[in-house]
Amino acid sequence: MRSLVLIGHGSHLNPESAAAVYAYADLLRSHGLFDEVVEGYWKEEPSLRQVLRTVRYTDVTVIPMFISEGYFTETVIPRELGLGHQGPVPPSGVARVIGGRTVRYTLPYGVHPRMSEVIVARAHEAYPDLNAEDTALIVLGHGTTRNENSNKIVYQNAERMRQSGKFAEVHAFFLDEEPKITGWQQHVKAKNIVLVPFFASEGWHTLETIPEDIGLTGEVTVFERLGTEGQTQTMYYSKPVGTHPAIAEVIVQLAEEAHGASDRGGDLERGHQDAWNAVWQRLSAGPLRIGEVLLRSMSGMVEIRHALDEGKANEGLKTVVTPEGVRDQVRLDEGGEYRPVHTLRNLARGWRAVLSEQDFPRALHFLYPAVVEESYAQHHHALRCTPWAATARRQTGIYAKVQKATPQQVETVASEICGGCLKTRLWADEPLHQTFFDGVPGGIPCAEACTLLVAEVREEVSGKRGQKSGPSH
Amino acid sequence: MRSLVLIGHGSHLNPESAAAVYAYADLLRSHGLFDEVVEGYWKEEPSLRQVLRTVRYTDVTVIPMFISEGYFTETVIPRELGLGHQGPVPPSGVARVIGGRTVRYTLPYGVHPRMSEVIVARAHEAYPDLNAEDTALIVLGHGTTRNENSNKIVYQNAERMRQSGKFAEVHAFFLDEEPKITGWQQHVKAKNIVLVPFFASEGWHTLETIPEDIGLTGEVTVFERLGTEGQTQTMYYSKPVGTHPAIAEVIVQLAEEAHGASDRGGDLERGHQDAWNAVWQRLSAGPLRIGEVLLRSMSGMVEIRHALDEGKANEGLKTVVTPEGVRDQVRLDEGGEYRPVHTLRNLARGWRAVLSEQDFPRALHFLYPAVVEESYAQHHHALRCTPWAATARRQTGIYAKVQKATPQQVETVASEICGGCLKTRLWADEPLHQTFFDGVPGGIPCAEACTLLVAEVREEVSGKRGQKSGPSH
Ligand code: SF4
Ligand code: SF4
Repeated sequence: MRSLVLIGHGSHLNPESAAAVYAYADLLRSHGLFDEVVEGYWKEEPSLRQVLRTVRYTDVTVIPMFISEGYFTETVIPRELGLGHQGPVPPSGVARVIGGRTVRYTLPYGVHPRMSEVIVARAHEAYPDLNAEDTALIVLGHGTTRNENSNKIVYQNAERMRQSGKFAEVHAFFLDEEPKITGWQQHVKAKNIVLVPFFASEGWHTLETIPEDIGLTGEVTVFERLGTEGQTQTMYYSKPVGTHPAIAEVIVQLAEEAHGASDRGGDLERGHQDAWNAVWQRLSAGPLRIGEVLLRSMSGMVEIRHALDEGKANEGLKTVVTPEGVRDQVRLDEGGEYRPVHTLRNLARGWRAVLSEQDFPRALHFLYPAVVEESYAQHHHALRCTPWAATARRQTGIYAKVQKATPQQVETVASEICGGCLKTRLWADEPLHQTFFDGVPGGIPCAEACTLLVAEVREEVSGKRGQKSGPSH
Repeated sequence: MRSLVLIGHGSHLNPESAAAVYAYADLLRSHGLFDEVVEGYWKEEPSLRQVLRTVRYTDVTVIPMFISEGYFTETVIPRELGLGHQGPVPPSGVARVIGGRTVRYTLPYGVHPRMSEVIVARAHEAYPDLNAEDTALIVLGHGTTRNENSNKIVYQNAERMRQSGKFAEVHAFFLDEEPKITGWQQHVKAKNIVLVPFFASEGWHTLETIPEDIGLTGEVTVFERLGTEGQTQTMYYSKPVGTHPAIAEVIVQLAEEAHGASDRGGDLERGHQDAWNAVWQRLSAGPLRIGEVLLRSMSGMVEIRHALDEGKANEGLKTVVTPEGVRDQVRLDEGGEYRPVHTLRNLARGWRAVLSEQDFPRALHFLYPAVVEESYAQHHHALRCTPWAATARRQTGIYAKVQKATPQQVETVASEICGGCLKTRLWADEPLHQTFFDGVPGGIPCAEACTLLVAEVREEVSGKRGQKSGPSH
């Protein structure tokens, strides 16, 4: 049996940012290649520190849903997963045994050779009449000084495009590094140019910075050719590669190749199995309360509803029947605000989920990620905690600043952010002798400061907290 | 049987502002003159629109805990209570029958003749050697153009002090109106002057504006006498009259006089009795869930705890045994933030209350003011609601501005503020077919927009929302 974990960036502010990862996870579930597909996020839940604990089988493939290698795929993700690897990942990936599981970590989908098919597809979409005589292709990358590896992919794909012979010329340009896109007219001679952004999604860059930097007026822009009177070059601007439907095939193929790497697969991971058996056992004995929800098993199905809606007639509630349906109900609070942490005490009411026993664990996982596994470990005094100092020491990049936070600053921010959360902060020596397994619905452990708290402490240290009413992104 | 209602201003921002009213209510309860003492607030709960419904008996005396007559005692309180009276209140008070109850509304405590004893007490405190030869008394009032009646009390008390013969001179001055305190040296000849602020409590005026306006350097300030070289006048600055312990006796006497006015007293108010009998009935049948708490009756006592703490060992919880103990537990949320509305979904955990059956109703009243009475009325389709337009039309003073709010503005603010509240907004046509009497813990009606929402809509209309992170005061 094999588990697949897709890793996304996610966001504390924008509820939509994980949508693409959701979609690919749903696709790969229906594809049936892996026996389980789980998502993990840098800025959402389950966090990269929790996700492996929520995986059912002992054979785990981890694919970073990033378009290019770089800071996240080489520094942040391996560190947070506990891979004990830092720096470039070889083509065959990195394999480690972690907590009784064999974990294989692959390269991001952007390096896959089939990406060039996606580039060509985007080019044709923008300029259907493209031809090898008068059309040049520009593959545009972000380019960042922090990790030169992330530009490699743009050059590799540009090189593949040259060999394909489909274009008169092929160039690689970058937003933030030489050769910069702003100087394209000094290099590109062709009459027609198709500009394809090698970006994961539409966003601030593709919609704002790129058009502004080169003076695009729309999908088609006519420029005066440098040093001439009245001669022109026409540029066709395509959508980013990352959102093209063909990406899904690239990811499926990446998963198949990774799947092949695990010869005999794995079996049920003991700790995970025990935790969920304990949940089933309590559910068979009667209603089970976890956090703000009430769970009841009824004739082979399991119903989840908000405890405040106990006893409410079903007509008065919106019924959902899939784990994804539950995921959508718990994303926003009743005021329509995004809930970056699922155990905040602002779960919306007004819905009920009726799920097959097969779907129920994944639904509860979307509702309260990693809560079953971590509470069970705590129930058996086996939950390892990470004190704030260790979490802070591990931070790099824009989050390194939290290392300067005084204990008082951390406590002030924590009392506000964690004050609205169900969890008990074991990492700050708050006692938790009874979990929901002991019948205490609010008994849920927090083993380590979450990324929302880390982000808020960073704002506090840089004196920017409180200017905005919501949490920082 | 007689009920006493004390009306205070309260605050959306400052948890301490109602402390004085709490203290006087506790005092009068222990005094035993009235069979029930209930508090109602302009800016806290129970609101002035709810408080009469929470009163047990049909004979009700209402005392405004204000030092002077004016805008609140003559316009806001009578209007919100539904007294059908506006403007000055005669010495004998105003009597009306409202919802089956005889309600007598008295003058504020500041007009009571015994207030002059408190002035003298404060004067002696500030200047023990005061004497009729060389000491002048200044009674300092706030003074507001909005209602000339509120200055009358200051002149009355000054006049009584003159007749007492205790001072060489007696003057009345005001902060915001002629004769202004800043010009005191043109009128006061005596060598020593005792300045007594006729204010309800220490605050911004007594600590900041007054000392600044007249140049006080502390409790004792020596001034140069106008038009002289080297002759001086010494001013002794006392604490405000409102916080002097003797005020309690004034209030007790005011209550006794009001008590006398109700010849034969009243009996249990039917609707109120039915609602609480229904609660007792359910409690005797087993645990009862209301909002975020779990109620259980055990051997003649009733236990209240947060539903998230169900099953938690008592050692892990702080135990309180009085209604006031419950009041203190529910004032702040787990992040230490003040909860201006009690049905916000941020009730702190970590406590349990064990109460006698006699104390239980008052404790539940402090926890969820008016929820039992209003839910029972809704349970019987008898809860009258007040749509937003009617609430807005009723507003005067700084709140009149809410009449300019567009439906969209009201809805935007309401979705944010009410999104975190247990209540269902009947006044905005949100359906509520089942209350906690039907076994739905979250089934709690909101019959009318609360003063917190009105205050937030006002901020929205004046474009000041979102600058501050917390709700406006
Ligand atoms: S750090 Fe605080 S807010 Fe984050 S999960 Fe833990 S308790 Fe909740
Ligand atoms: S107006 Fe909104 S916040 Fe105020 S009590 Fe009603 S539902 Fe709650």
